[in-house]
Amino acid sequence: MSELRQDPTTYDWVIIAKERAKRPHEFKQSEALITPPPLHSKDCPFCPQNESMTPPAEAVYGTPDDWKIRVVPNKFAALTPEGDTIRNEWKLFRKSHGYGRHEVVIETPVHNQYIPFMDDVQVENLIKAYRDRYNALKKDHNIKIIIIFKNHGWAAGTSLEHPHTQIVASPIVPPFIRRRYEIATQHFDNTGRCLYCDLLKSELEASERTIAERKFFAALHPFASHYPFETWIMPRMHSSCFGNIVDIEIEELAPLLKEILLKLYISLGNPDYNLIIHTAPVDDERKTYYLWHIQIIPRLTLAAGFELGSGIYINTAMPEATAAFMRDVEV
Amino acid sequence: MSELRQDPTTYDWVIIAKERAKRPHEFKQSEALITPPPLHSKDCPFCPQNESMTPPAEAVYGTPDDWKIRVVPNKFAALTPEGDTIRNEWKLFRKSHGYGRHEVVIETPVHNQYIPFMDDVQVENLIKAYRDRYNALKKDHNIKIIIIFKNHGWAAGTSLEHPHTQIVASPIVPPFIRRRYEIATQHFDNTGRCLYCDLLKSELEASERTIAERKFFAALHPFASHYPFETWIMPRMHSSCFGNIVDIEIEELAPLLKEILLKLYISLGNPDYNLIIHTAPVDDERKTYYLWHIQIIPRLTLAAGFELGSGIYINTAMPEATAAFMRDVEV
Repeated sequence: MSELRQDPTTYDWVIIAKERAKRPHEFKQSEALITPPPLHSKDCPFCPQNESMTPPAEAVYGTPDDWKIRVVPNKFAALTPEGDTIRNEWKLFRKSHGYGRHEVVIETPVHNQYIPFMDDVQVENLIKAYRDRYNALKKDHNIKIIIIFKNHGWAAGTSLEHPHTQIVASPIVPPFIRRRYEIATQHFDNTGRCLYCDLLKSELEASERTIAERKFFAALHPFASHYPFETWIMPRMHSSCFGNIVDIEIEELAPLLKEILLKLYISLGNPDYNLIIHTAPVDDERKTYYLWHIQIIPRLTLAAGFELGSGIYINTAMPEATAAFMRDVEV
Repeated sequence: MSELRQDPTTYDWVIIAKERAKRPHEFKQSEALITPPPLHSKDCPFCPQNESMTPPAEAVYGTPDDWKIRVVPNKFAALTPEGDTIRNEWKLFRKSHGYGRHEVVIETPVHNQYIPFMDDVQVENLIKAYRDRYNALKKDHNIKIIIIFKNHGWAAGTSLEHPHTQIVASPIVPPFIRRRYEIATQHFDNTGRCLYCDLLKSELEASERTIAERKFFAALHPFASHYPFETWIMPRMHSSCFGNIVDIEIEELAPLLKEILLKLYISLGNPDYNLIIHTAPVDDERKTYYLWHIQIIPRLTLAAGFELGSGIYINTAMPEATAAFMRDVEV
């Protein structure tokens, strides 16, 4: 018999298909699928010597001739800082200009260097670059939410293999995010506590889904994981806004993120994945109802008609089993 | 500059990437990708002579030896009629048995006969089979919502190519569906009218996204389409519950559905797609706030980190352009 589990942060339900569930090692891709990319690619717009293939940089870490991280506007930006944010309506149809920002963080000059294989300092600087851009982008008072995300591999929606992260700064807080806030606000109004801090405390107490527990962060496969091997990295001290992360936290987060991604790399065979930094809307940063966190979604399964038509996800892995498996992966 | 558009039924926002938008003909897959399946496959559990490979049928249309449509329990059911629907809680974690039903409608005995190539009567009988199963499944008082959906092709999440539809009967109405209801209820409380009927009226008045307008149904690419070539077929007379569709409506719907799917088949090169019948929760069938409708989602693009992290979809096609293109496809 399968199990229905509710996500306490969204009230969404997930079907954990226990009998159909694969065992954790069965999700590993065959090695044949993994063709290692080269160190440098002459056609790659993100490789050194090809800087003219991107729009001029917004920020460069290192020197212009020996950069370590480059931040550039997305050449195919979904949102651009043009026009205004005024809504226009005709009958039920509401629209506005696609105002906003869309940047690319080129994570390394090395075409084939994925995060788990970077040195710790490079990953620390990468997280600092995310923080810098977050805090720079929010100065535009039209910007209401900043989404930092990474698409690794084709099934995760990327077309460029050079390691990169994207940042979209949007003038609109979508219902997808507002709903999380409403639920967390109601929990706070009822209990006086942050929903996410309570959730983390319960996860650590249950312990069966915990992968790593450090001073400032913990990593786990959540109770109502929507996807096999879905992984959350949560701060242990309350902070709603990613932009407020401090250096001492980054020094712990960088090796932890490397470790988690390396465990996924080893156990799943370099899976395609999305990484998302969930953080409060800009105007809600000071509220104590929310906890910024990182979500990693390996793209091992496809959403089908049932998921698209009901919002109920079928997860073919038990998060308790995948977490135990991840704990045991040697890195 | 791109455009932000709001879906009036969910309040979700979509980015219509106008400059990045492909023109409609550019979405067509190369013919090389299309390998026609055989008429009959000896290993297919849904082909005649292989009836013993499925659980015993719940319903058969035609005779047992010369069936036209067979409905069987899903051998790998996500939900099964075992146990109870009682929620168990420990701290913030809520779960229940995976109670429910999961059926497969084998649409035809012919392994390679897709809906647009069936005769009208076969498609009418298929829609009647959906209706019969809907009305049979809702007799279980634990069932609160029935989702009828179809996964056509690998990218739409199917592993079996023989034409089939699935039906999941769930004891839980998920927030994904409740939210649509809340928005429609608020519209009704404010205006005294059905949101979806108002929406259809506005779409028909705007006319630029309409593909077909018949006596009982209209087909269109909605204003805030989340996906390129996303198509809705909506009843023109108010009805919240698919289970109440009458034969005279089915006689119009069958050839219309064939036509829409044939236009997609021709213009996109047999695309993978999901088809979903959205209908009211069982206990809300009598309410006048909702309109059952069919949504067809060709799987031409992938949701990436931005979509998974914000719920904002980037659509790389203009629905006005794809609708005009669909209108002109000769069938």
